[in-house]
Amino acid sequence: MSNINEVRKPEHQIDTLFYERWSPRAMTGEEISNETLNQLFEAARWAPSCFNEQPWNFLYAKKDSEDWGLFLKILVEVNQLWAKNASVLIACISKKTFTRNGKPNGTHSFDAGAAWQNLALQAYSLGWSAHGMAGVDYKKGKVDLKIPEDYQLEMMIAVGKQAEVSILPEDFKKKEWPPSGRKSINDFVQKGQWK
Amino acid sequence: MSNINEVRKPEHQIDTLFYERWSPRAMTGEEISNETLNQLFEAARWAPSCFNEQPWNFLYAKKDSEDWGLFLKILVEVNQLWAKNASVLIACISKKTFTRNGKPNGTHSFDAGAAWQNLALQAYSLGWSAHGMAGVDYKKGKVDLKIPEDYQLEMMIAVGKQAEVSILPEDFKKKEWPPSGRKSINDFVQKGQWK
Repeated sequence: MSNINEVRKPEHQIDTLFYERWSPRAMTGEEISNETLNQLFEAARWAPSCFNEQPWNFLYAKKDSEDWGLFLKILVEVNQLWAKNASVLIACISKKTFTRNGKPNGTHSFDAGAAWQNLALQAYSLGWSAHGMAGVDYKKGKVDLKIPEDYQLEMMIAVGKQAEVSILPEDFKKKEWPPSGRKSINDFVQKGQWK
Repeated sequence: MSNINEVRKPEHQIDTLFYERWSPRAMTGEEISNETLNQLFEAARWAPSCFNEQPWNFLYAKKDSEDWGLFLKILVEVNQLWAKNASVLIACISKKTFTRNGKPNGTHSFDAGAAWQNLALQAYSLGWSAHGMAGVDYKKGKVDLKIPEDYQLEMMIAVGKQAEVSILPEDFKKKEWPPSGRKSINDFVQKGQWK
């Protein structure tokens, strides 16, 4: 496996963590401490949000804890195959209405996405990997995790220490490296109105 | 004005940028270079997304450019009062369907939120401030910016160099410092199912 800096080359100089962070599937399954987990949530905590509403919520189950099976089974099968070796599974949830006035919060998902990115970057910074998944049975997740009506399951997160590619099932080995690239800035940035 | 580290105290050790970054309203209005702007978009670029769809799009207008007034007037009036001193206004937009198959993308807002957070953190890291706003006339924004049907205006971003509080209109002075705090982790994290 080559170095991430050989395969991801930013077009403009940025802090390295933004492109060195990626989403491996090969994870060791080793135990994650409560303190590490708290550091991830602490980073999420400081994300900005509309009216400082902080609409993000997280549920988690550490590997082999009593809730582990419940969380793992919310993932689609193809994700279960590798995420079973995560150290913790986290459900990222957002509150759809403002606590301040009960009205719909138009940025509840968007703001939860900001919190998730902080969590992912902090994980990388601590030597862990956070892999987000929308490959989730959302209906099952909402029921099994007892998520209240006013809240939305956004996605699931597998956090673990990166492992050798060889531990992955055959189909995943080819997908693991190199990590995904990105569109060029010119493909998603425009000056002035949409053209 | 005291130091950010005197007013924001994380409960668990995390990288400083997550809590040192905040959203000032007092901005100098000085020019932002194309290269700095590109660095912000480059950071956004590397955010993760479902199927690596990268649903985020950005439109921008630098202060006093021909599009400046158009962008400024999309903000609600109370935001125009201070954002008129930003160096650039950016519209953050997401694509609601997958390019790969045309189906609805359930995480388009969430993923755009991750990209925005990268942009905000990179701005801080470069000595700039990025202030997100949902105080936006969304209907007007969609029309005036010619945002296509399949895309959603998520929020607007004011980027500038922090200025002295004294430049702000009276009502904003009290709001500027100290920066907003956050809920405790215990208020948004639970082990296992929702309780």
